[in-house]
Amino acid sequence: MRHRDLEEAGAQIILGNTYHLYLRPGDQLIARRGGLHRFMGWPHPILTDSGGYQVFSLAQRRKIDERGAEFRSHLDGSLHLLSPERAVDIQVRLGSDIAMVLDECLAYPASRDETAASMERSVRWAARCRAQFASIRHDDSADVAAISAGQAQFGIVQGGVFADLRHASAAATVAIGFEGYAIGGLSVGEPVDVMYAVVSETTRHLPDDQPRYLMGAGTPEDLVECVGRGIDMFDCVLPTRNARNGQLFTSEGRINIKNARYAEDDGPVDSTCRCYTCRTHSRAYLRHLYLAGEMTAGVLNTLHNLTFYLDTMRRIREAISLQTFDRFRQEFVRSASRLSLDS
Amino acid sequence: MRHRDLEEAGAQIILGNTYHLYLRPGDQLIARRGGLHRFMGWPHPILTDSGGYQVFSLAQRRKIDERGAEFRSHLDGSLHLLSPERAVDIQVRLGSDIAMVLDECLAYPASRDETAASMERSVRWAARCRAQFASIRHDDSADVAAISAGQAQFGIVQGGVFADLRHASAAATVAIGFEGYAIGGLSVGEPVDVMYAVVSETTRHLPDDQPRYLMGAGTPEDLVECVGRGIDMFDCVLPTRNARNGQLFTSEGRINIKNARYAEDDGPVDSTCRCYTCRTHSRAYLRHLYLAGEMTAGVLNTLHNLTFYLDTMRRIREAISLQTFDRFRQEFVRSASRLSLDS
Repeated sequence: MRHRDLEEAGAQIILGNTYHLYLRPGDQLIARRGGLHRFMGWPHPILTDSGGYQVFSLAQRRKIDERGAEFRSHLDGSLHLLSPERAVDIQVRLGSDIAMVLDECLAYPASRDETAASMERSVRWAARCRAQFASIRHDDSADVAAISAGQAQFGIVQGGVFADLRHASAAATVAIGFEGYAIGGLSVGEPVDVMYAVVSETTRHLPDDQPRYLMGAGTPEDLVECVGRGIDMFDCVLPTRNARNGQLFTSEGRINIKNARYAEDDGPVDSTCRCYTCRTHSRAYLRHLYLAGEMTAGVLNTLHNLTFYLDTMRRIREAISLQTFDRFRQEFVRSASRLSLDS
Repeated sequence: MRHRDLEEAGAQIILGNTYHLYLRPGDQLIARRGGLHRFMGWPHPILTDSGGYQVFSLAQRRKIDERGAEFRSHLDGSLHLLSPERAVDIQVRLGSDIAMVLDECLAYPASRDETAASMERSVRWAARCRAQFASIRHDDSADVAAISAGQAQFGIVQGGVFADLRHASAAATVAIGFEGYAIGGLSVGEPVDVMYAVVSETTRHLPDDQPRYLMGAGTPEDLVECVGRGIDMFDCVLPTRNARNGQLFTSEGRINIKNARYAEDDGPVDSTCRCYTCRTHSRAYLRHLYLAGEMTAGVLNTLHNLTFYLDTMRRIREAISLQTFDRFRQEFVRSASRLSLDS
């Protein structure tokens, strides 16, 4: 995607991966360029994650202890320690608008004891992250202060699928005090009704007047269902990764563009969609590009899926402001539940 | 590239590869979609090659005789015969605006005898292509006639590096009579001064009032030098292939974006360029995208190189209409001859 594509699709904020940017090209280089906005030429908001999730999923020989996460780079094997303080420092140098605290990501399923111990460590890390964030705020390092001026920091609620642990984590995280609150540790393999229940249980204990961010979710219906449970923000690879694999989201369910039934289909992916792909190309042509292995297939499919996701969020906001959200939700879930028109 | 990118870069015509389209998705399918313009959503001119070049460079176990080129598909090994008549039929079904005759592509170097025999066969094939083209023009197959209405057909002059063979080929091809004339068999490994000499020698024998098309060339300086020798049209993979490899054309010579010297370079690729890439991103960011293996690197680099090429042609046209072409040519070749600022 080009920045212009994201703007046209209605993106208000993008996510930068701290792990990747720290290793390459490096947060110090990005700070010298004036921060991530200037480095990449994106003048709108950016959220950065803490780097923890990629350490757990990509890095080699990682070791987690109270200090933080020690790991070897997946690029060159070099040894690094991502401590809570370090995760804050890196994000300050990147100069994102929203920085995330470092938390521990548990694999699913995990026992109650494991989950409790991990959640408690995440709370201790959150307190260290907030202290570091506050100390940098009053630091006299003028360059970095300028890059990160106005940066917000979000805490992350953990506690797995255990309602009382979620409650305890939310209370402790809110007690530390952040500009917003995320729910972590979901969308990791648990059944969808469990995820919805945990979201409901957790948002009950979060402030009404601060943003709530569900990390790593979800399907279009997850967006609608979780907004219905009090969530404001999401991030997910689904629209982009599925696009590269040929799976497209439409107002009538998902389609897989490589299916033979689209070989002679002159219609757009979604006749209700306003994106460049739907305005310009037929399903037959997109199928051809995909089967021919053209880079353009991934580009055009991604453009459509991102537009579908951002349109879904836009429609949710409209329905809320028109006080028609409940009806919207019922109708959306009914059409989206036709999970796949193909295969 | 998206179509919109090409339009913004100033592209007036694109080239479709008949070999690829014939094998996948198939010329019959494209004809059922209303032709290549409608299938791909490109409302501007399209030139199609004959398919011969890719048969020679990509297909397996190819056998050339008077009938045409027999080959096996590089996709599935299926056996095909690309005869002169077939090459015309396929391009009619694609419905391109300019169709090319089937010719034989000799490897360089080739002996005078080989070159003469091959050139003479290409002339015989050109006559067969023209006869087939004329018969389809008067065919009553309404659908295909509609798709290819107004299609032009270009002959191709062969003859290798031998001036008298080029002369004979040009005379014979012009005697058959086409809407335009191409020069084939150059840009295949011969020294650049030999190519320029052959171009000069060949254009002398082509009509002044019909388009001349140099196939497969070239560098930016080749465009300027060959327009100076009477060429109107070019096609070449150089701007797109080099872009994917990180080599960018600029008004001050070529640069390789992966070089370390650009790691902290906040300037655009070319400060005189109006393309989206130069307007939006720094060399430092483009280098990062390239080294990180991001698809966007190829996209943004290609957008720049195509804009550079199309701007070069636009500047040539302006200089000709202002009668300042000779001065433009001297200045352009002086700066472009700094072939690479790097490595």
